[in-house]
This record gives sequence, C-alpha cells and structure tokens, in this order.
Amino acid sequence: MIILGVDPGTLFTGYAVLSGVNEKLELLSYDVIKIPAKNKLPLRLKQIYDSLVDVIEEYKPDEFAIETAFYGKNVQSTLKLGHARGVSILAAVNKQIPTTEYSPREVKKSVSGLGAASKDQVRFMVCSILKLKADTLPKSADISDAIAVALCHHNKLLGGGVKNSKSNSWESYVKENPKKVKIQSRK
Amino acid sequence: MIILGVDPGTLFTGYAVLSGVNEKLELLSYDVIKIPAKNKLPLRLKQIYDSLVDVIEEYKPDEFAIETAFYGKNVQSTLKLGHARGVSILAAVNKQIPTTEYSPREVKKSVSGLGAASKDQVRFMVCSILKLKADTLPKSADISDAIAVALCHHNKLLGGGVKNSKSNSWESYVKENPKKVKIQSRK
Repeated sequence: MIILGVDPGTLFTGYAVLSGVNEKLELLSYDVIKIPAKNKLPLRLKQIYDSLVDVIEEYKPDEFAIETAFYGKNVQSTLKLGHARGVSILAAVNKQIPTTEYSPREVKKSVSGLGAASKDQVRFMVCSILKLKADTLPKSADISDAIAVALCHHNKLLGGGVKNSKSNSWESYVKENPKKVKIQSRK
Repeated sequence: MIILGVDPGTLFTGYAVLSGVNEKLELLSYDVIKIPAKNKLPLRLKQIYDSLVDVIEEYKPDEFAIETAFYGKNVQSTLKLGHARGVSILAAVNKQIPTTEYSPREVKKSVSGLGAASKDQVRFMVCSILKLKADTLPKSADISDAIAVALCHHNKLLGGGVKNSKSNSWESYVKENPKKVKIQSRK
C-alpha cells in the first residue's frame, strides 16, 4: 500500500510518499513544491497540479490523504488555501486515486497522541515512528505535516490509532530531553 | 474573440460563452453546472473541471474571465469556494487560455455603472446589453453573473468601461417600471 500525503499551500505544498505493509513503514519520497511568489495564481495552480501528477505517475500511490483546512485563519488566506487544496485533490481524482481528508486534530492525535500537538512535536513523532534521525529530515513543517497525514491514513487503514511505545512518545522525549524542549506557560 | 465567463461554486457553477467582435456581441452558450449535494468534494471538483473542459473544447474560447471571491462570507464557505475557483481556473490554464480575474465590484460597475448593483440589476443590464428578452434568460444568478463577468472582460479588452445609453440604464428602467422594482429602504 502506497500513500501520498499532501500539505497544500499556494506557495509551499509539502508531499510525502509512504509505503506501508502492515506495520512496516518506508518513506519513499518527500519534498516541498515551491512556487515563486511572483507567479500569478493560475500558473501557481498549474504548477501544484502538474507536480503532484508527476509524483503520482512516478510512485503510483494507492491512496491520497490531505488535511482539511484550519479554519482559524483569515478569509483571504483561506480562499488561497482552498485553491491549492482544490487542485491537489483534483490531481488525485483525475488519476483515479481514492482521497481521504483528515482534520489537523486527527492527524496530530494519530501520530503523537495529542490533538493539540505543536509542529515540533509532530516532526519529532514522524521521525520516531519512521526511525529517521531528526537531522536527516528537512526542517520544513510542510514535509513533516505531509508525512504525518500519510501516517494518519495508514493508521486509519490498519484500523487502529497510534501505537506509541513508552520509548517513542512525546512525553518520554520531554522527560529524557528537558533542555531541548521549550515549555510554554499558559496564560 | 470568444470569452468564457465563469461564476464558480461547489454546488452551482454558472458559465457563459460570449462572442464579441468590437461592439457586436453574441451569447453562444450558457448553463449552470449543477453538482448533487450528496456527491463528495473530490467528485464535485472533478465534475466542475470536466464540465468546463468540455465547454472549452466545444467553443474554444480565446479568453477566460472569473470573479474574485466575495470576502464577506464565512471562512468555511470561502474555503469551499476556493476549491471550486481553483479547479475552474485550472481548466482554463490546462487548455492554454489566458485567465483574468475581476472583483464583484468591477463586474457590476462594468455592466451597470453601479459597483454595488444588486443581482436583479446585473441581470437586467445583461439582458439589455445583449438585447435578450428578460424571460428568455433563466433566472439563475449564476448564469447572469457569468455573463456579466464575460461582458466585463469584453469591455476591458475594448479598452472602455460600460456604454450605457439612457434607454438601457438601470436608472431609466426604474423610472419606466416603478411597479416592477422593490425599493428597499436603508436603515
């Protein structure tokens, strides 16, 4: 089973191609489709669409997973995000790949056990689950979020939630690495 | 010069194909792409995209015009509209048709002279400019808005604004048909 996970945006669209056979996971590819800000909207949309079609043709994923949007942003940025999501989903549908949407909360909960996990927490858990050294994965949250939504879909297909052993949970990481983690006090 | 004007939405996407040779205008086609509400988003987006590609292949427009979104709506409906706009614009770009966006205010001003014209005013002016009897054009605002954006683009390409003779302006219509127009008092 190959899953294409996508974190769309009109300037940066992260994607990840994950192979999952039962609990054996392998990251086949990932990148950020970077669109120059000077390009006009129609060209940007075509670049996102064409890039994802290329990835689909190369890796032939069986499934496509994408986050639903975060509604807290302002209306104008939401509209732009809608354009990027629309053409991303269309790339999958036009290639006959079933698509599934997950809320940001579901994705975070699935990989970290915490629905309100931070970007850093998501990145840490993605590396941990895939047994990647943290410094081998680019720091772009567009990539770690795309991997996370692919992992979330894999978990869903396996019929389970996240399986965190004590050794790779965020809580155990915080306990073992107190100096690496900024604790923000709640007001 | 053939212009495809589009008023997109995830349930109803209006389109109009306008032929304009200097000031000679002819409406070649118009319709509403109706998507059943029970269809899921990915399928809806494909239906909008495929329908517009069909229209483009049949009429081979030289230009594509679409309204920018109205930002006053809520965030969730704006996101949905973004999806529909994204795949509509992509249909044009994938067919190598130059696309132009106009704000609702520009479109209304171009066809009626009033940036804050109502849907009824836009419909009246569209019929008047194209010399259509009002009862021959479907009442759907998705269609009259799509025609309006195509007319707006035609005006822009001609290098002028709207040319309202006294006989076809909204003001003269109100004067001549006082009983047909509901006057809303401003609070």
